[in-house]
Amino acid sequence: MRGMVLRAHPRATLVDLGHEVPPQDIALAAFFLRAAVDRFPAGTVFAAVVDPEVGTARRALCVLAHACYWVGPDNGVLGEVHASARDAEARTVDFAHLGLEATARTFHGRDLFAPLCGRLAAGRVGFTAVGPRADAVVRAPSLLAGAPRVVFVDGFGNLVTNVPAAALAGVRAVRIGVRTVPVGDTYAAVAPGSPVAVVNSYDLLEVAVSRGSAAALLGCGVDTPVMLEANA
Amino acid sequence: MRGMVLRAHPRATLVDLGHEVPPQDIALAAFFLRAAVDRFPAGTVFAAVVDPEVGTARRALCVLAHACYWVGPDNGVLGEVHASARDAEARTVDFAHLGLEATARTFHGRDLFAPLCGRLAAGRVGFTAVGPRADAVVRAPSLLAGAPRVVFVDGFGNLVTNVPAAALAGVRAVRIGVRTVPVGDTYAAVAPGSPVAVVNSYDLLEVAVSRGSAAALLGCGVDTPVMLEANA
Amino acid sequence: MRGMVLRAHPRATLVDLGHEVPPQDIALAAFFLRAAVDRFPAGTVFAAVVDPEVGTARRALCVLAHACYWVGPDNGVLGEVHASARDAEARTVDFAHLGLEATARTFHGRDLFAPLCGRLAAGRVGFTAVGPRADAVVRAPSLLAGAPRVVFVDGFGNLVTNVPAAALAGVRAVRIGVRTVPVGDTYAAVAPGSPVAVVNSYDLLEVAVSRGSAAALLGCGVDTPVMLEANA
Repeated sequence: MRGMVLRAHPRATLVDLGHEVPPQDIALAAFFLRAAVDRFPAGTVFAAVVDPEVGTARRALCVLAHACYWVGPDNGVLGEVHASARDAEARTVDFAHLGLEATARTFHGRDLFAPLCGRLAAGRVGFTAVGPRADAVVRAPSLLAGAPRVVFVDGFGNLVTNVPAAALAGVRAVRIGVRTVPVGDTYAAVAPGSPVAVVNSYDLLEVAVSRGSAAALLGCGVDTPVMLEANA
Repeated sequence: MRGMVLRAHPRATLVDLGHEVPPQDIALAAFFLRAAVDRFPAGTVFAAVVDPEVGTARRALCVLAHACYWVGPDNGVLGEVHASARDAEARTVDFAHLGLEATARTFHGRDLFAPLCGRLAAGRVGFTAVGPRADAVVRAPSLLAGAPRVVFVDGFGNLVTNVPAAALAGVRAVRIGVRTVPVGDTYAAVAPGSPVAVVNSYDLLEVAVSRGSAAALLGCGVDTPVMLEANA
Repeated sequence: MRGMVLRAHPRATLVDLGHEVPPQDIALAAFFLRAAVDRFPAGTVFAAVVDPEVGTARRALCVLAHACYWVGPDNGVLGEVHASARDAEARTVDFAHLGLEATARTFHGRDLFAPLCGRLAAGRVGFTAVGPRADAVVRAPSLLAGAPRVVFVDGFGNLVTNVPAAALAGVRAVRIGVRTVPVGDTYAAVAPGSPVAVVNSYDLLEVAVSRGSAAALLGCGVDTPVMLEANA
């Protein structure tokens, strides 16, 4: 994919958004894309190829939102970004009209999405030329929906929950597994090796261990429930 | 290595071809390099430093093929690319003549190959100036040779075989491990969680699991035999 | 972080120095930064965000040394680089004065360090404008201090020790675990599958296995002691 972007736009700057999305995890990819809003330069083209239905009749989309382009299959991966901007526009990509053809039915990222992204970034194709206006955009169940729980574990072993920072007013501690963990301002608010609940950089409740791994120390992972404890 | 490329060519664009080659796996690296042909811009310089004999008298090569440069030790890693182009040319790199000297005998990638690649990419050294014409290029046993079997497992758990797409005419299913897996057009041709055999983006037979991991579900891996079943 | 660098400097070239530093490992990060000296172009800005005390009152530094900028928390991560240059200068970063404010207390890399690095790289802020001169720079215990032992294991399973090359004069073999391993010039100085002790590209003693993994074959890891055996 990187090579095919560069064939279309030799001066492109290529950045990996992250390497933490497990195969097929549309909800987590949609979350990370939403979290990238306002963190990249205007005009950035995001290629979001979590695409378990590659090669079928599923549509491909190009979304214009937050002054960036977001390209991927219409399976929910772009749903959070699209819904987050009141003025978002979406187009169904007409690859044939753009002269793009897939040589494989299992990797449209390489054959179709990457060349399109390169052309968009180079200004060689404009948004309205991508294809017809899309009537609707698929939205997958949000990673953040449902009961309070761990929704992903990052590379540090931090347990990221779906509890928004706003829900923490008056909360002094959270219960997770067999532990009660105090709320703190920073990872270092507790002694090294001790657990702490912080507001993280996604503005979500996160259970961490100071200079350690909460996943390892607490034996918790995705879907572990969390409970908020108000002032006692 | 990345820094040393940039010292020679500060405006270079650096791309990792992949991270799936295990240490010392010359055959797999040679396969991936061959698969990169026509997927990168003309003039791309590929640095292929799978180099278990670093520091010995093994030769270093620069191959000009498919309008790109391919640089690495003469141990077979460049053999597939070289053999794939009728008009490929190869030069033995004369690092001393280029004013390049290794400070370590264990990492010529950093001391020699990266600076050479930067100079080639910057146009500061031309192909014929790299060194004398190489009489022959080592070719390692191809990853694709031998009996039908899994040759690598990708990051999705897909089982990539050495069976070319052309061999699948009239084939309805493949046997792998204790399973008979139907041939389909796409990963989504079967229900989620079910195995399917597809032609992949390398034009090879690949056994996958829809929205899952074939390696995990089928308990197969590198060297598991596959058998083709014609129409019953 | 990558996006925030690009927002400040859209033409920045972004390079990962490596992915081998475990979470919170300040000593290893400080070692790798020191090892990067003279391997990157002059003017390179290194962002070294190993930062377990993020969000507390710990200072942030910008070091000017070896014609490059080195940015990170004042927790020792920049200590080796700073100490390695006689003419190194250090400034305490005054983010507020630079108009930079953190939206999260858990990820100053994104909110503060990355924008600063982008501005430095773009030449939009000069070294003296970063903040007041720092009186001292924290230095963590060096990875290389202490008894002869393995200090890290690289991606090949090579056992990197803290023994400098200079200590190997007259040494024919090293003892590690239950094995006596001969000293050789290169990884290939012994038969495939056999262990060998070499001087590596950091100018340190390293125990390797030709075409194999020393960590796996010898069952050794970080902190395994090594002993030098002189000519018998």
